[in-house]
Amino acid sequence: MKIQPVNETVSLTRDLDTGTEAQREAVEAIIEQVRQKGDTALRELTKKFDGASLEQFRVTKEELEGAYSQISEDLLQALREAIVNIRDFHERQKRQSWMTAKEDGTILGQKITPLDSVGVYVPGGKAAYPSSIMMNVLPAQVAGVKRIVMVSPAGADGKLPASVLVTASELGVAEIYKVGGAQAVAALAYGTESIAPVDKITGPGNIYVALAKRAVFGKVDIDMIAGPSEIVVLADEKANPRYIAADLLSQAEHDEQASAVLVTNSQELADQVAGEVETQLATLPKKAIAEASIRDYGAIYVTRDLVEAIDVVNQLAPEHLEILTEEPMNLIGKIRHAGAIFVGAYSSEPVGDYFAGPNHVLPTNGTARFSSPLNVDDFTKKSSIISYSKQALQTHGHKISALARLEGLEAHARAIDIRLEDN
Amino acid sequence: MKIQPVNETVSLTRDLDTGTEAQREAVEAIIEQVRQKGDTALRELTKKFDGASLEQFRVTKEELEGAYSQISEDLLQALREAIVNIRDFHERQKRQSWMTAKEDGTILGQKITPLDSVGVYVPGGKAAYPSSIMMNVLPAQVAGVKRIVMVSPAGADGKLPASVLVTASELGVAEIYKVGGAQAVAALAYGTESIAPVDKITGPGNIYVALAKRAVFGKVDIDMIAGPSEIVVLADEKANPRYIAADLLSQAEHDEQASAVLVTNSQELADQVAGEVETQLATLPKKAIAEASIRDYGAIYVTRDLVEAIDVVNQLAPEHLEILTEEPMNLIGKIRHAGAIFVGAYSSEPVGDYFAGPNHVLPTNGTARFSSPLNVDDFTKKSSIISYSKQALQTHGHKISALARLEGLEAHARAIDIRLEDN
Repeated sequence: MKIQPVNETVSLTRDLDTGTEAQREAVEAIIEQVRQKGDTALRELTKKFDGASLEQFRVTKEELEGAYSQISEDLLQALREAIVNIRDFHERQKRQSWMTAKEDGTILGQKITPLDSVGVYVPGGKAAYPSSIMMNVLPAQVAGVKRIVMVSPAGADGKLPASVLVTASELGVAEIYKVGGAQAVAALAYGTESIAPVDKITGPGNIYVALAKRAVFGKVDIDMIAGPSEIVVLADEKANPRYIAADLLSQAEHDEQASAVLVTNSQELADQVAGEVETQLATLPKKAIAEASIRDYGAIYVTRDLVEAIDVVNQLAPEHLEILTEEPMNLIGKIRHAGAIFVGAYSSEPVGDYFAGPNHVLPTNGTARFSSPLNVDDFTKKSSIISYSKQALQTHGHKISALARLEGLEAHARAIDIRLEDN
Repeated sequence: MKIQPVNETVSLTRDLDTGTEAQREAVEAIIEQVRQKGDTALRELTKKFDGASLEQFRVTKEELEGAYSQISEDLLQALREAIVNIRDFHERQKRQSWMTAKEDGTILGQKITPLDSVGVYVPGGKAAYPSSIMMNVLPAQVAGVKRIVMVSPAGADGKLPASVLVTASELGVAEIYKVGGAQAVAALAYGTESIAPVDKITGPGNIYVALAKRAVFGKVDIDMIAGPSEIVVLADEKANPRYIAADLLSQAEHDEQASAVLVTNSQELADQVAGEVETQLATLPKKAIAEASIRDYGAIYVTRDLVEAIDVVNQLAPEHLEILTEEPMNLIGKIRHAGAIFVGAYSSEPVGDYFAGPNHVLPTNGTARFSSPLNVDDFTKKSSIISYSKQALQTHGHKISALARLEGLEAHARAIDIRLEDN
């Protein structure tokens, strides 16, 4: 693992993959086909891309129930406990509508309303992660979204993985369609005979799914388009290099493009971690992927002191930040940009990926400077409430007309004046 | 004004203006030019598009102070009172970070952090609205954003309107640059010698500004790209047709593309409003604009009853909704989609545009289904906090490893196991 000098250009930000011209055109064509031909298009495209011949897309009650026999009791308990933890954390994010009443009769307020409907995309095959289903569905449920739909491409056998079906079933998601790719996104945005449209689409997917989400944005809302995953570990000389190496590799195994970075004020720790990464890499099943990630996007930065190390972290604005220092909790106030902050030696990043409760859908690619983890707010919207009494308008109306005329908007001013004249 | 039948296709949604090919290419070229040549490019483009030869872009303290002599004392008082109201409303939106500690030593939390820096675009000439400055700057200030920058194109005389300078000065915004168009957006996103880059760009602008914001999105955050403005009035037979007509026209005078719609269960009111709109139109300074807006995008829908009328309103998901019925406050619980809800006969929409306190930057084009008014949250981001104790990891670690292995992520599982083995 490279030990590198720190400079001002240290960055995790890379150009987002916006696909090739051919990919973008393919996605536009698929969306158009689904808008024109609805379910017929979905059947054709599902046959073409997933190899499955489906008459009905909707997963049946029998399929959902049958999936349980393929999941061990221990795993089911772990899933259930994770669901409880994630639901509990997101319940704490929930906000109330509020109003305030002034003496002159003015009432102002903010009404929080859940979205009507949300579609969650679940990738197919090996990328069908139960944790991703929990992380997308639970904040929507806590927000109060009434209709939550899942879409996921079936295998050539026309089936979805048991872990996906069981997770959906445990969450109480009953409207699941075996459709994937850009065609699933198009169906969720515009609707077909069998799939009613939704107001927002979330969940990860391949480049075609990402391009389709981008293309339907505006017609519906979407979540952020994620870049490659990142971890930054901030550590001092007291940290355990074996833990750090294991955590860096847990990020690196995701993807050749993933970033794993150590920032430390200790040259000794830097050397030890570099050695440990080599040792632990040797026996990993996803060795080739992790090795490429560490080689191309891994780095160890040695800083003069902890103050400079914190500056580097804020410059990187990582998706995941682990703090393994002597007093880690005392440092979080200095962290200005990070999607999730894992504090101390026992808060390994996978704790948050699966189980602890906070969302694992996090801002990547430096966007932690201005973006947040997926959360309950993402599934609600606010409406302002303004109620002026006759008295309030009589007191303040002339100021409002004056401000309107300052901006050259006479009809605005007259809408106020016509009420003042009457009273 | 057309009185139309209600049907399922009633909608305010229109295709957003994404510019012509030539406009998009011009914007790309401008952004590239600013990235390459910095201030030199800004000077050239400002000369070319605004006709102003500027050595320094930054507004001086003398310019700010000198502007006060051009504003009447009454207007200044109205501006100051509006600022107090808007700040007060947004203070109520502010959220606290929170943490929760469990008995096993687990600490989970959500840290709220303001963005580091925000750039507010203020259009030039007649569209330089003081209210727009207040509505963009105040939520950022309340959020705690330390650096707030304003950009606005100067006139050919190299000056900004006094109302813009005074409003900025009253808000305490001191970093103001006389740059506009796509070049200003590029400078805010990438920085130049004299303008340091920001993390988010908000504020309205023409098609070039909108395209530039879209182009730099990802590098920085942006606010939503607004469509034409809309008002929907929901009224019953008790409502005053003169007030309704005045409010519809106040929207219509904005823009030929603006929408003004009445939804009512009273045929009599519908006829009266149609007549009043004609009468009031006759004497408006912006008659031609308002007339075109009413003709092309105005409509009156007469429904069977109030229940159907509310359905139509939710289908429209308007930016502004006025409720002029006998018991208006009782209806707001039934409104699922609206940017701002104006309740009762005295809550004319301009009350909210300038003065009451809620933000006037609102979701247009049907996006109130999933978007919110500009608010304090838009200028903060959340970071999750996860701190697991040794005890907590010992209790739950094996479940986390099991879930990781279910997803085929062995390095994730080992990052947990290596800690369990040590203890």
